[in-house]
Amino acid sequence: MDKQAQDLLKKQAAQKAAAMVEDGMVLGVGTGSTVAFFIDALGKRKEAGLKLKALVTTSNRSKKQLEGWGFTVSDLSAIDQADLTVDGADRVDDQLDGIKGGGGALTLEKNVAINSKKNVWIVDESKMVHHLSGFPLPVEVLPISCEQNFRRFAQEGLKPQWRMAGEKRYVTHYGNYIIDLAADPIPAPHGLADYLDHTVGVVEHGLFLDICDEVLVARGDGTIEQRHR
Amino acid sequence: MDKQAQDLLKKQAAQKAAAMVEDGMVLGVGTGSTVAFFIDALGKRKEAGLKLKALVTTSNRSKKQLEGWGFTVSDLSAIDQADLTVDGADRVDDQLDGIKGGGGALTLEKNVAINSKKNVWIVDESKMVHHLSGFPLPVEVLPISCEQNFRRFAQEGLKPQWRMAGEKRYVTHYGNYIIDLAADPIPAPHGLADYLDHTVGVVEHGLFLDICDEVLVARGDGTIEQRHR
Repeated sequence: MDKQAQDLLKKQAAQKAAAMVEDGMVLGVGTGSTVAFFIDALGKRKEAGLKLKALVTTSNRSKKQLEGWGFTVSDLSAIDQADLTVDGADRVDDQLDGIKGGGGALTLEKNVAINSKKNVWIVDESKMVHHLSGFPLPVEVLPISCEQNFRRFAQEGLKPQWRMAGEKRYVTHYGNYIIDLAADPIPAPHGLADYLDHTVGVVEHGLFLDICDEVLVARGDGTIEQRHR
Repeated sequence: MDKQAQDLLKKQAAQKAAAMVEDGMVLGVGTGSTVAFFIDALGKRKEAGLKLKALVTTSNRSKKQLEGWGFTVSDLSAIDQADLTVDGADRVDDQLDGIKGGGGALTLEKNVAINSKKNVWIVDESKMVHHLSGFPLPVEVLPISCEQNFRRFAQEGLKPQWRMAGEKRYVTHYGNYIIDLAADPIPAPHGLADYLDHTVGVVEHGLFLDICDEVLVARGDGTIEQRHR
């Protein structure tokens, strides 16, 4: 499929997601190429009269795009919880569990997601897998013990790699590093998530399990597949 | 007991801990009034010829005191693991599990402790309890979702309180807040630790479980009690 056809499909998925947004909602908005189309669809709904109670987002890029449409963007700390969050994902499996954080914003993304009543992901079909695989798992780690945790992950067979920004280690918004685990497929995702949650020095990881309620998949055959948990 | 007698007792416990340090060790050094005596005892051993391979510490206060004795202090990232870490604790129970973080440095303290082969705590007897109690449990939280987590902890009956610095919230070395949980006694410490490890937005908490190998207790009757896990 050429880019034009793919973009058309992403737009359709984005419009379907935008149709889920209701007046008076507190809305969470993620990041990504499909989400960018979602924001445009949302902006058009705003011009047609949509009124949100509040809106939070997970990146500066989305924030700027939303403000371009005249939306006021709040901090997560200023709201109670979001009614609905629409985001992308790097991989989504048959149980609607996913890997996120390819862009490095996994910590904010997970904090927004966990504080949302409903999470909808919009992706193209290249992201859909039966078992989580084909994408390294990002783990945000405190610099103080990052060397120990890197060695620990290597010993556990998780194939750690430093996320780089040119010659230097990539630094997150919170001043931490990212270790990408290249073990592929992800071995026992729930068990691995539990292990990472208990690892001292891990701030957050990109396993988003039991979080996504619904996924909209832009299929190569021109259809939008809608899957519920 | 008057302060002079208490200090004498703390000094005895500190000297006992300092006697555990061996030539060529990588040593971790914590913080606190008893640890301050430990550093002085360590300094005197240095003057008598003790040679450490490397030394890490959990506070600037200890770092300055160590440098005053001519020690070179490394970052945790520069070592593999410590052979021995000597630290204090705010509460220690019958299983040698403890609460730490009254000083706000729980995250660095736990990262040093977890990367030590052996952990020895030196405390006075006021810190010893049968079940963890009498001291609020510090939880370091990311500001982005701190309001949600505060409300969550309140709903769970954990009696959250913001750690304050005058009129403002206390800010940790890593730019986070501390929520002190005043539930007393600590309900099911291992279960609570598991809950906090899994709570998105929690960086670290002050439950140090299965970490301490040995505690030296300066008793009011003038004795030093030595307890092993």
